Amino acid sequence: MERFKQQIEFLVEIDKLKHVFRKTKLFDGSRFENDAEHAWHLALMAMVLSEHANEKVNVAKVIKMVLIHDIVEIDAGDVIVYDQQNRTLAQAKERAAAERIFGLLPSDQKQEFMALWQEFEAQETPEAKFAAAIDRFEPILQNHLTDYYAWRTHHVSYEQLLESNRHVQAGSQLIWQAVQQIFADAKEKGAVQS
Amino acid sequence: MERFKQQIEFLVEIDKLKHVFRKTKLFDGSRFENDAEHAWHLALMAMVLSEHANEKVNVAKVIKMVLIHDIVEIDAGDVIVYDQQNRTLAQAKERAAAERIFGLLPSDQKQEFMALWQEFEAQETPEAKFAAAIDRFEPILQNHLTDYYAWRTHHVSYEQLLESNRHVQAGSQLIWQAVQQIFADAKEKGAVQS
Repeated sequence: MERFKQQIEFLVEIDKLKHVFRKTKLFDGSRFENDAEHAWHLALMAMVLSEHANEKVNVAKVIKMVLIHDIVEIDAGDVIVYDQQNRTLAQAKERAAAERIFGLLPSDQKQEFMALWQEFEAQETPEAKFAAAIDRFEPILQNHLTDYYAWRTHHVSYEQLLESNRHVQAGSQLIWQAVQQIFADAKEKGAVQS
Repeated sequence: MERFKQQIEFLVEIDKLKHVFRKTKLFDGSRFENDAEHAWHLALMAMVLSEHANEKVNVAKVIKMVLIHDIVEIDAGDVIVYDQQNRTLAQAKERAAAERIFGLLPSDQKQEFMALWQEFEAQETPEAKFAAAIDRFEPILQNHLTDYYAWRTHHVSYEQLLESNRHVQAGSQLIWQAVQQIFADAKEKGAVQS
């Protein structure tokens, strides 16, 4: 059955996401987190925190979006959000990766996954805005609980934190308040330059 | 805001699932898989393979179910499915774990998560049966792609494979056919005792 074979090929390929390591550490600081674990955690955040989205969201759609949003990093790699130059360079790679990896699926499912990923990237719908908010909230919590490991290591400034995460408020005012508090604490403790 | 605080406490606690390692290895054989990665992969399987469920399923419910089904292993640990004696012992621990961990959430969300987990455990609804089928399919695929690592290591027999996974057919006849083929290959290659 050709269709089932294509689906299995995709499901085998995406195992590689477990090898893409991020810049932040697990909450106990013992090791870096990988993209598959990150996606799982965001899906749980979507299940638990969706009531705090600014606009009413379709929770199932947010969950699907966060589950697949980083699959392109199998080819494009993980680039820290505070490195704007390399983030811009990564975007073309990510588009090619979406074509290649989602392209392993039967064409109707390829369309479905591409549409979901593009909706996330475009940041226009309530679901995409909320997904982006939790996508930032998780690494911010990780920094908060690991003595700001990634921010210290990559010399992130307080201004960069505010600037690069400002769109969190478009997804959730409550989460934006929480992350601003974390940024203020980091500044007070001298973990980020003001 | 007390409610938000409880939700964050739960989301921080479940990070520990990334430290619960399973008996099977990633598809490239490089290391063991952890429960968070496993849950993510099952959620993707639900998104891609739900059309092969025997009965029509609510895909969003299957996804939520597989995302949370192993959270109890933070306290109870992972026990290989072919070790029936320890699986039975683990069940009481898992019930206590569900009470403790889902109990960190606000009570309405605790009820929602408990109900989802109990539905999965009871294996009666179409969603639970299909979730159980993919929960077995992933480690079977991992064994298939890693020269049957876990089955060889734990001296699993062909009869045990058939017996312990027979319920896959209640979720998906197509997946059951595929796993039977993998079992037959493993027997032919002498990886499992007949």
